[in-house]
Amino acid sequence: MTIIPINQVPLEKVEMPGAEGCAYRVAISRRDGAPTFAMRVFDVAVGGHTPLHQHPYEHEVFILEGVGTVWREGNDVALQPGDVLLIPADEKHQFKNTGSGTLKFICLIPAQFQKC
Amino acid sequence: MTIIPINQVPLEKVEMPGAEGCAYRVAISRRDGAPTFAMRVFDVAVGGHTPLHQHPYEHEVFILEGVGTVWREGNDVALQPGDVLLIPADEKHQFKNTGSGTLKFICLIPAQFQKC
Repeated sequence: MTIIPINQVPLEKVEMPGAEGCAYRVAISRRDGAPTFAMRVFDVAVGGHTPLHQHPYEHEVFILEGVGTVWREGNDVALQPGDVLLIPADEKHQFKNTGSGTLKFICLIPAQFQKC
Repeated sequence: MTIIPINQVPLEKVEMPGAEGCAYRVAISRRDGAPTFAMRVFDVAVGGHTPLHQHPYEHEVFILEGVGTVWREGNDVALQPGDVLLIPADEKHQFKNTGSGTLKFICLIPAQFQKC
Protein backbone atom coordinates (compact mmCIF):
# COMPACT_ATOMS: atom_id res chain seq x y z
CA MET A 1 0.00 0.00 0.00
CA THR A 2 1.30 3.41 -0.98
CA ILE A 3 0.24 6.48 1.03
CA ILE A 4 1.38 9.95 0.00
CA PRO A 5 0.17 13.49 0.76
CA ILE A 6 -0.78 15.01 -2.58
CA ASN A 7 1.37 18.08 -1.93
CA GLN A 8 4.45 15.85 -1.81
CA VAL A 9 3.88 14.78 -5.41
CA PRO A 10 5.83 17.02 -7.84
CA LEU A 11 3.75 19.72 -9.55
CA GLU A 12 4.40 19.67 -13.31
CA LYS A 13 3.39 22.38 -15.76
CA VAL A 14 0.89 21.31 -18.43
CA GLU A 15 2.73 22.18 -21.64
CA MET A 16 -0.04 21.21 -24.06
CA PRO A 17 -0.89 23.92 -26.66
CA GLY A 18 -3.96 25.83 -25.50
CA ALA A 19 -3.28 25.32 -21.80
CA GLU A 20 -2.77 28.46 -19.71
CA GLY A 21 -1.81 28.49 -16.04
CA CYS A 22 -2.25 24.72 -15.64
CA ALA A 23 -0.16 22.32 -13.64
CA TYR A 24 -0.78 18.82 -12.38
CA ARG A 25 0.44 16.12 -10.04
CA VAL A 26 0.44 12.49 -11.14
CA ALA A 27 -0.77 11.01 -7.85
CA ILE A 28 -1.09 7.37 -8.95
CA SER A 29 -0.10 5.77 -12.25
CA ARG A 30 1.37 2.63 -13.75
CA ARG A 31 4.76 3.64 -12.38
CA ASP A 32 3.27 3.02 -8.90
CA GLY A 33 1.83 -0.31 -10.04
CA ALA A 34 -1.71 0.91 -10.74
CA PRO A 35 -3.05 -1.54 -13.33
CA THR A 36 -6.32 0.05 -14.46
CA PHE A 37 -6.52 3.82 -14.04
CA ALA A 38 -4.38 6.84 -13.17
CA MET A 39 -5.20 9.62 -10.70
CA ARG A 40 -4.01 13.15 -11.43
CA VAL A 41 -4.73 16.34 -9.49
CA PHE A 42 -4.86 19.59 -11.48
CA ASP A 43 -4.23 23.15 -10.30
CA VAL A 44 -5.58 25.83 -12.64
CA ALA A 45 -4.41 29.34 -11.72
CA VAL A 46 -6.73 32.35 -11.56
CA GLY A 47 -7.68 33.17 -15.16
CA GLY A 48 -6.18 29.94 -16.46
CA HIS A 49 -7.68 27.10 -18.47
CA THR A 50 -7.02 23.67 -19.87
CA PRO A 51 -6.99 23.26 -23.68
CA LEU A 52 -10.29 22.91 -25.53
CA HIS A 53 -9.64 19.40 -26.75
CA GLN A 54 -10.81 15.81 -26.99
CA HIS A 55 -9.19 12.36 -26.88
CA PRO A 56 -10.18 8.72 -27.26
CA TYR A 57 -10.60 7.99 -23.52
CA GLU A 58 -12.85 9.14 -20.73
CA HIS A 59 -12.26 11.47 -17.78
CA GLU A 60 -13.75 11.07 -14.32
CA VAL A 61 -13.43 14.34 -12.40
CA PHE A 62 -14.09 15.53 -8.85
CA ILE A 63 -13.89 19.28 -8.12
CA LEU A 64 -11.91 19.86 -4.92
CA GLU A 65 -11.50 23.62 -4.54
CA GLY A 66 -12.28 26.85 -6.33
CA VAL A 67 -14.86 27.64 -8.97
CA GLY A 68 -14.81 27.46 -12.71
CA THR A 69 -16.55 26.18 -15.80
CA VAL A 70 -16.42 23.24 -18.13
CA TRP A 71 -17.10 23.58 -21.87
CA ARG A 72 -19.93 21.24 -22.83
CA GLU A 73 -21.32 21.30 -26.36
CA GLY A 74 -20.58 25.00 -26.80
CA ASN A 75 -21.61 26.22 -23.35
CA ASP A 76 -19.51 26.94 -20.27
CA VAL A 77 -21.24 25.16 -17.37
CA ALA A 78 -20.48 26.40 -13.83
CA LEU A 79 -18.59 24.10 -11.47
CA GLN A 80 -18.04 24.15 -7.72
CA PRO A 81 -16.44 21.89 -5.10
CA GLY A 82 -18.15 18.51 -4.86
CA ASP A 83 -19.21 18.40 -8.50
CA VAL A 84 -18.55 15.09 -10.25
CA LEU A 85 -18.10 14.79 -14.02
CA LEU A 86 -17.96 11.92 -16.47
CA ILE A 87 -16.57 13.12 -19.80
CA PRO A 88 -16.94 10.32 -22.34
CA ALA A 89 -14.22 9.45 -24.84
CA ASP A 90 -14.03 11.77 -27.88
CA GLU A 91 -16.13 14.52 -26.25
CA LYS A 92 -14.66 18.02 -26.48
CA HIS A 93 -14.08 19.75 -23.12
CA GLN A 94 -12.19 22.58 -21.44
CA PHE A 95 -11.93 23.64 -17.80
CA LYS A 96 -11.60 27.35 -16.93
CA ASN A 97 -10.90 28.98 -13.60
CA THR A 98 -13.44 31.79 -13.19
CA GLY A 99 -12.79 32.43 -9.50
CA SER A 100 -10.32 34.32 -7.34
CA GLY A 101 -8.40 31.28 -6.07
CA THR A 102 -6.84 28.17 -7.60
CA LEU A 103 -9.25 25.71 -9.21
CA LYS A 104 -8.26 22.22 -8.05
CA PHE A 105 -9.74 18.99 -9.34
CA ILE A 106 -9.01 15.30 -9.48
CA CYS A 107 -9.04 13.88 -13.02
CA LEU A 108 -8.72 10.15 -13.65
CA ILE A 109 -8.02 8.37 -16.93
CA PRO A 110 -7.36 4.78 -18.01
CA ALA A 111 -3.81 3.84 -16.94
CA GLN A 112 -2.39 3.24 -20.41
CA PHE A 113 -2.96 6.88 -21.44
CA GLN A 114 -0.93 8.39 -18.59
CA LYS A 115 2.62 8.82 -19.88
CA CYS A 116 4.48 8.85 -16.54
CA MET B 1 -20.96 14.72 -20.39
CA THR B 2 -22.60 14.10 -17.04
CA ILE B 3 -22.23 16.68 -14.23
CA ILE B 4 -23.72 16.05 -10.80
CA PRO B 5 -23.10 17.51 -7.34
CA ILE B 6 -21.99 14.61 -5.17
CA ASN B 7 -24.62 15.41 -2.53
CA GLN B 8 -27.36 14.76 -5.09
CA VAL B 9 -26.21 11.14 -5.46
CA PRO B 10 -28.15 8.84 -3.10
CA LEU B 11 -26.29 7.88 0.07
CA GLU B 12 -26.47 4.10 0.60
CA LYS B 13 -25.56 2.27 3.79
CA VAL B 14 -22.65 -0.16 3.50
CA GLU B 15 -24.19 -3.44 4.67
CA MET B 16 -21.04 -5.56 4.47
CA PRO B 17 -20.27 -7.56 7.65
CA GLY B 18 -17.66 -5.71 9.70
CA ALA B 19 -18.71 -2.25 8.49
CA GLU B 20 -19.90 0.20 11.13
CA GLY B 21 -21.28 3.66 10.43
CA CYS B 22 -20.37 3.53 6.73
CA ALA B 23 -22.33 4.83 3.79
CA TYR B 24 -21.36 5.62 0.22
CA ARG B 25 -22.47 7.31 -2.96
CA VAL B 26 -21.82 5.67 -6.32
CA ALA B 27 -20.81 8.83 -8.17
CA ILE B 28 -19.85 7.25 -11.51
CA SER B 29 -20.21 3.64 -12.63
CA ARG B 30 -21.03 1.48 -15.63
CA ARG B 31 -24.67 2.49 -15.28
CA ASP B 32 -23.53 6.01 -16.29
CA GLY B 33 -21.52 4.60 -19.19
CA ALA B 34 -18.12 4.60 -17.45
CA PRO B 35 -16.15 1.88 -19.26
CA THR B 36 -13.02 1.47 -17.12
CA PHE B 37 -13.41 2.48 -13.45
CA ALA B 38 -16.04 3.50 -10.92
CA MET B 39 -15.92 6.46 -8.53
CA ARG B 40 -17.51 6.12 -5.09
CA VAL B 41 -17.48 8.61 -2.21
CA PHE B 42 -17.57 7.19 1.31
CA ASP B 43 -18.85 8.79 4.52
CA VAL B 44 -17.62 7.10 7.70
CA ALA B 45 -19.37 8.37 10.83
CA VAL B 46 -17.53 9.32 14.02
CA GLY B 47 -16.29 6.05 15.57
CA GLY B 48 -17.14 4.07 12.43
CA HIS B 49 -15.03 1.90 10.18
CA THR B 50 -15.02 -0.10 6.98
CA PRO B 51 -14.54 -3.89 7.23
CA LEU B 52 -11.03 -5.28 7.60
CA HIS B 53 -11.01 -7.11 4.29
CA GLN B 54 -9.33 -7.75 0.97
CA HIS B 55 -10.46 -8.39 -2.61
CA PRO B 56 -8.92 -9.17 -5.98
CA TYR B 57 -8.85 -5.57 -7.29
CA GLU B 58 -7.13 -2.33 -6.37
CA HIS B 59 -8.40 0.82 -4.67
CA GLU B 60 -7.29 4.35 -5.46
CA VAL B 61 -8.31 6.67 -2.63
CA PHE B 62 -8.24 10.43 -1.99
CA ILE B 63 -9.05 11.68 1.52
CA LEU B 64 -11.46 14.64 1.30
CA GLU B 65 -12.45 15.53 4.86
CA GLY B 66 -11.92 14.37 8.42
CA VAL B 67 -9.18 12.29 9.96
CA GLY B 68 -8.76 8.59 10.40
CA THR B 69 -6.50 5.62 9.89
CA VAL B 70 -5.93 2.86 7.40
CA TRP B 71 -4.86 -0.63 8.44
CA ARG B 72 -1.62 -1.54 6.66
CA GLU B 73 0.14 -4.79 7.49
CA GLY B 74 -1.06 -4.75 11.08
CA ASN B 75 -0.62 -1.05 11.81
CA ASP B 76 -3.16 1.77 11.75
CA VAL B 77 -1.56 4.58 9.73
CA ALA B 78 -2.89 8.14 10.24
CA LEU B 79 -4.71 9.82 7.36
CA GLN B 80 -5.71 13.41 6.72
CA PRO B 81 -7.27 15.39 3.87
CA GLY B 82 -5.16 15.37 0.73
CA ASP B 83 -3.66 11.94 1.36
CA VAL B 84 -3.64 9.63 -1.65
CA LEU B 85 -3.58 5.83 -1.36
CA LEU B 86 -3.01 2.98 -3.77
CA ILE B 87 -4.15 -0.29 -2.20
CA PRO B 88 -3.09 -3.16 -4.45
CA ALA B 89 -5.34 -6.12 -5.20
CA ASP B 90 -5.49 -8.75 -2.44
CA GLU B 91 -4.00 -6.45 0.23
CA LYS B 92 -5.92 -6.34 3.51
CA HIS B 93 -7.13 -2.88 4.56
CA GLN B 94 -9.60 -1.06 6.81
CA PHE B 95 -10.45 2.61 7.20
CA LYS B 96 -11.39 3.98 10.63
CA ASN B 97 -12.71 7.40 11.57
CA THR B 98 -10.67 8.59 14.55
CA GLY B 99 -11.84 12.20 14.48
CA SER B 100 -14.78 14.26 15.66
CA GLY B 101 -16.41 14.75 12.24
CA THR B 102 -17.31 12.57 9.28
CA LEU B 103 -14.40 10.96 7.43
CA LYS B 104 -15.01 11.42 3.71
CA PHE B 105 -12.95 9.87 0.95
CA ILE B 106 -13.12 9.06 -2.73
CA CYS B 107 -12.47 5.38 -3.51
CA LEU B 108 -12.18 4.14 -7.09
CA ILE B 109 -12.23 0.58 -8.35
CA PRO B 110 -12.25 -1.12 -11.76
CA ALA B 111 -15.73 -0.72 -13.29
CA GLN B 112 -16.63 -4.41 -13.44
CA PHE B 113 -16.44 -4.78 -9.64
CA GLN B 114 -18.99 -2.06 -8.89
CA LYS B 115 -22.38 -3.75 -8.68
CA CYS B 116 -24.63 -0.76 -9.46
